[in-house]
Amino acid sequence: MARGAGREAATLVKDTIAAGGTGTVQGAIALVGAGPGAADLLTLRALRLLQEADIIYYDRLVDPGVLELARRDAERVFVGKEVGASSWPQDRINAVIVAAARQGKKVVRLKSGDPGIFGRLTEELKAAHDAGIPVEIVPGVTAASGAAASLGRGLTERGATDRLMLATAACKPGDPEPDWAEMLRPGTSLAIYMGVRQAALIVESLRDASVPMSLEVEIVSKASTPQEKVTRCNLGGLAKVMKDERVDNPAVILISWPKETIAHVSSIAAA
Amino acid sequence: MARGAGREAATLVKDTIAAGGTGTVQGAIALVGAGPGAADLLTLRALRLLQEADIIYYDRLVDPGVLELARRDAERVFVGKEVGASSWPQDRINAVIVAAARQGKKVVRLKSGDPGIFGRLTEELKAAHDAGIPVEIVPGVTAASGAAASLGRGLTERGATDRLMLATAACKPGDPEPDWAEMLRPGTSLAIYMGVRQAALIVESLRDASVPMSLEVEIVSKASTPQEKVTRCNLGGLAKVMKDERVDNPAVILISWPKETIAHVSSIAAA
Repeated sequence: MARGAGREAATLVKDTIAAGGTGTVQGAIALVGAGPGAADLLTLRALRLLQEADIIYYDRLVDPGVLELARRDAERVFVGKEVGASSWPQDRINAVIVAAARQGKKVVRLKSGDPGIFGRLTEELKAAHDAGIPVEIVPGVTAASGAAASLGRGLTERGATDRLMLATAACKPGDPEPDWAEMLRPGTSLAIYMGVRQAALIVESLRDASVPMSLEVEIVSKASTPQEKVTRCNLGGLAKVMKDERVDNPAVILISWPKETIAHVSSIAAA
Repeated sequence: MARGAGREAATLVKDTIAAGGTGTVQGAIALVGAGPGAADLLTLRALRLLQEADIIYYDRLVDPGVLELARRDAERVFVGKEVGASSWPQDRINAVIVAAARQGKKVVRLKSGDPGIFGRLTEELKAAHDAGIPVEIVPGVTAASGAAASLGRGLTERGATDRLMLATAACKPGDPEPDWAEMLRPGTSLAIYMGVRQAALIVESLRDASVPMSLEVEIVSKASTPQEKVTRCNLGGLAKVMKDERVDNPAVILISWPKETIAHVSSIAAA
């Protein structure tokens, strides 16, 4: 099914670039989801906004292929959001996107995945609202959806996992550790974002709560990009495998606890 | 930012249609996410596959605007999946998609939202694997992401709701009722899919578990389409509002229980 893909995608991109931006109107901000990685997992709406943008502020996790879909003469500003020297504090990002829109620019704030899921939209929305600048959100494909598609399976399975928990290990500094055991119950698929460095801690808290260490775990890093890497293990071996395989963020850790496992465990207990 | 949208989207669609399908090769099946509703929330990859498809099997929940993006001479087959006389049983869907692929056709099985989230992929994947037919999954924007974007907010909020639970009220016949109270804990955003008819039952079980009836609820039906409707209430009033406003599926019910509420409740209890 992939045949002709490259050619057609290229045509699509070229034609859209030819259509180009449509002249400056009132300044506005769009908080746009870039999807899980691959440029062609961008939505048509996101593509249009990238083509109309005068300036694009993008995160570390946005794949370069996505940025190539933007209008050629749009300004591109890397705002980091990485722990380290090169990152921008959130209030500086808020200030620059508002300032650019006030100059009449069409601003795209490009975030990996779906901006509504762990995308820290609240502060940027508030800054735009406070300044009276029109703002819109363009939803995207979240990382867990991209990861599961790469694995060739769904995130949920009827009758086995009828609920999907998306959680981040990157909480507000000073907040208590997430209660992982509360999140992973029988019948649940748990997708952990930004959890690579906390893997040992996560496994420990799940073990303490008697979650079976035999549960299957799949880790997908850089889902849907050429650098994608899939690592499989059981829950008990997660921390070691992450270290041995040098898995790094961005990665999604997928842990499933099917309902059947309960019946299985109960029958063992009853035996 | 919406200016020029119609024209550019039209150009994009026209050019892609002109590029057209690229001739028959080996039969294959693609399980494709159609996104939450609006045609321009389709991904570029999904658009390409719709353009290459010989035959498209689609569900009731797929918006007509999405189907218009398919190749003009592609066959379109409605497979229902609605409770009622016109629906196709799952095994019949499995059989026809495999049969079409065996004839050398490029088959798209188009599902609303992200096919990996409550999309019942397992059986169709198994049918394709058993028949030795190449199959791929194209992730999409899930309904909850579309709903939140329409509401102008994120699904999670750092420090308040650091986890997002996606759950369906449409479980396997005979399965026990989902444990809603187990899913909605402080610090959680809960998005319920296909929950319109179970609303009274859901509220009842949350009330029994002492979940505050003052929590804010937003219901978004037909998110991102021209028929989109947003209904707001508090948890205690959910069932009545759903009935009074005649909310119907497809709808996403969003309930947030921010961490702050605990502190608030505790301080009242201590007073």
